Amino acid sequence: MKYSTDVLIIGGGPATAACAVTAKRYYPSKQIIIVKDKKPGIIPCGIPYMISTLDKPDDNILPFDPIEEKGVKVMIDRATDIKRDDKSVQTENGDSYSYEKLILATGSSPIRPPIRGIDLENVYTVEKDYDHLTGLMDAIKRSENIVILGGGFIGVEFADEISHLENKNIYLVEMLPDILSNSFDTKFSELAETKLKERGVHILKGKKMEEIMEKDGRVQKVKLSDGTAVDAELVILCIGTHPNTGLADKAGLDHGIEKGIWVDEYLRTAERDIFAIGDCASKRDFFTRRETAVMLASTATAEARIAGANLYQLQVIRENKGTLAMYSTYVSGLVLASAGLTAKTAKEQDFLIVSGQAEAVDRHPGSIPGASKTLVQLIFSQQAGILIGGQVAGGETAGEIINTIGVLIQKNVSINEVESFQIATHPRLTASPTKYNLILAAMQAD
Amino acid sequence: MKYSTDVLIIGGGPATAACAVTAKRYYPSKQIIIVKDKKPGIIPCGIPYMISTLDKPDDNILPFDPIEEKGVKVMIDRATDIKRDDKSVQTENGDSYSYEKLILATGSSPIRPPIRGIDLENVYTVEKDYDHLTGLMDAIKRSENIVILGGGFIGVEFADEISHLENKNIYLVEMLPDILSNSFDTKFSELAETKLKERGVHILKGKKMEEIMEKDGRVQKVKLSDGTAVDAELVILCIGTHPNTGLADKAGLDHGIEKGIWVDEYLRTAERDIFAIGDCASKRDFFTRRETAVMLASTATAEARIAGANLYQLQVIRENKGTLAMYSTYVSGLVLASAGLTAKTAKEQDFLIVSGQAEAVDRHPGSIPGASKTLVQLIFSQQAGILIGGQVAGGETAGEIINTIGVLIQKNVSINEVESFQIATHPRLTASPTKYNLILAAMQAD
Repeated sequence: MKYSTDVLIIGGGPATAACAVTAKRYYPSKQIIIVKDKKPGIIPCGIPYMISTLDKPDDNILPFDPIEEKGVKVMIDRATDIKRDDKSVQTENGDSYSYEKLILATGSSPIRPPIRGIDLENVYTVEKDYDHLTGLMDAIKRSENIVILGGGFIGVEFADEISHLENKNIYLVEMLPDILSNSFDTKFSELAETKLKERGVHILKGKKMEEIMEKDGRVQKVKLSDGTAVDAELVILCIGTHPNTGLADKAGLDHGIEKGIWVDEYLRTAERDIFAIGDCASKRDFFTRRETAVMLASTATAEARIAGANLYQLQVIRENKGTLAMYSTYVSGLVLASAGLTAKTAKEQDFLIVSGQAEAVDRHPGSIPGASKTLVQLIFSQQAGILIGGQVAGGETAGEIINTIGVLIQKNVSINEVESFQIATHPRLTASPTKYNLILAAMQAD
Repeated sequence: MKYSTDVLIIGGGPATAACAVTAKRYYPSKQIIIVKDKKPGIIPCGIPYMISTLDKPDDNILPFDPIEEKGVKVMIDRATDIKRDDKSVQTENGDSYSYEKLILATGSSPIRPPIRGIDLENVYTVEKDYDHLTGLMDAIKRSENIVILGGGFIGVEFADEISHLENKNIYLVEMLPDILSNSFDTKFSELAETKLKERGVHILKGKKMEEIMEKDGRVQKVKLSDGTAVDAELVILCIGTHPNTGLADKAGLDHGIEKGIWVDEYLRTAERDIFAIGDCASKRDFFTRRETAVMLASTATAEARIAGANLYQLQVIRENKGTLAMYSTYVSGLVLASAGLTAKTAKEQDFLIVSGQAEAVDRHPGSIPGASKTLVQLIFSQQAGILIGGQVAGGETAGEIINTIGVLIQKNVSINEVESFQIATHPRLTASPTKYNLILAAMQAD
């Protein structure tokens, strides 16, 4: 069949959802069609919580019904070709969609390292695919010895969640000296490590996986770079993803260094009627403007909203001209959150920095129920005195404290400004006004 | 005795504590003496939680030991006179303190309206005084019928806390059509009202207290402006406070319209070596520069830090040239928070506004444990498109979400900027990236 639409979005993740909703709001008269290749979508950041926190995998489905109710058509099919001259997209089902504006939101796929045994049964990547994930969840339940490769957010969250099931030996293998080390300095990584150890997780740092050994075609052991081996019936690969750019490649759209599709500030590709958003699009670092590989649903949806608003006219000006790495995670009751640069990544980029730390209880007095110690570290450029990074470790409030820090970074505030910011405090909700640690950390900076 | 010091601070609240710590950090070689008139200090915002949340009143003491450990001297005495020519302060004990820099942090006192029966036994104001408060706590425990006058934050929090004790009839009397109406629009006030009603609190709106009727010298009934009367063995007055300026008055320091001590941007009074901070100092509204009566510990400590840093040299530039009303409160599990103007207060100031609302669950998926629905309303000036206010109702995360909103207001951000802000999201900690309601509320603004 031949379809004709104003706006065509290829993809089924959060960026697609956010872009469709935004486009409908700004251009209500335009017809929008989404072509996605898998029926039930998945909330990507919720994947680890399908293991034990959520009752059932179906609780983590990303619903498209609310978008369809807004008049957006959703087609289940796989796009195979873009005809740029013709302004149309061809699909696996043999259909063709002509468009005025095309948005590529094709996402990313997990990296499978080329090592021996990687294709054995029970070696899993973490794909945003319902059937794949229910298979993985079953494999987790059936396995006693589980090796997780990669101590980033997903690996850490998988380890924590699996530790709540009975009779599991969990090995978390990280080649760097610290877990979570892209986003945190050592002190914070160690807090997470302590929590995981309390949950019985074995953390094997400074080690690579060299080979997956088999017995009868199934995983039996994992051999590490230090010559040791650990038993394993299941290996979960959590070592990152790469952008899905096959469709854009075939259409001759430009590539960035990291292989994302090249886009301008408004997420327009070299072809101005074709946009790319989310994991498949290239990103520039907030501080250095170098290409960066931040692949997060929050980043993807921020891009999606800018693209959606600016499809036909530039309406919402992109104020932050680069991607800020902003993360939060939860490890057995401890929340760790990071925005911008760490002391380590700042030094790697040749920033001279000053930093300040402050710890406070996130209720006041500290005997109020639910109080957790919360540590804040702020990092400023030394000469300019501008905030370039922040890390928080504490209770659940840390998940929103990091957004305050993120706004402060995006607005280029000075140490001075952080010190004199006005805040709201409440005994049951925040640190005390005399010890609000975001402000105290700025005061300590030197 | 005659004492001589570099820095003299008069007061015993959070502003005194924050100012002493800041001054010690910026001017470590300067000697600091605090003169405060009551031995155990009280955490002002924690007062309602002395009723049932905290185990004992002592849990709500504001400790001065950590400040004394930094080398600050704390004297228990009452300042009676300032000799400006002589640069000295006289006290009730007959001592004299000469200073280079004097900081007045004398706080505020509750208002007692001039109505019949106001001086009866068991008519209590809420004073930041340990002995007074333990008396009030005892009176609450002994009384069955309790009238709280004033539906602002303190009145609402008292009502909620008392409702957790057994066998209490609580009447909350508010003369305006809504409770909490200085800081919230009706929709938000009604959410709080519903919570209080669920806890059995009787809310009497649009009514004034006309007379407190006695029997044998004790409170028996309260007569209201609609002619009705309610039984009461205890009346708690929560109708606001006025600045304590007696000491400054006697010394001839200038006054603002609302009776706070006049100060410049750096909290310096007309006499440049005398500073005034916190409730006793006059404040200018962030938006209009008119004098405003915001008396909050968070505001007081923000001023204290600016004064402390700038005692001898102007070092920390005050970036926000006016006081922003920022509050949060907790009503039986519901958090309400507000920053800046409401739709109502904006209209009162003749702002033309646009506003947007969005509701989302503060976890994703919504089946993650601890999820609460959270409603955000943002208010922008219509022509300038600048954020001038925000209100949040939801779970405990609202206590920090309001600080993100506060920073956005203090940085004069546009609707555009809010829409394109980068945020961190996490299933266990925040709304989903597709539904982060701070951004969605900006998108809805019209």
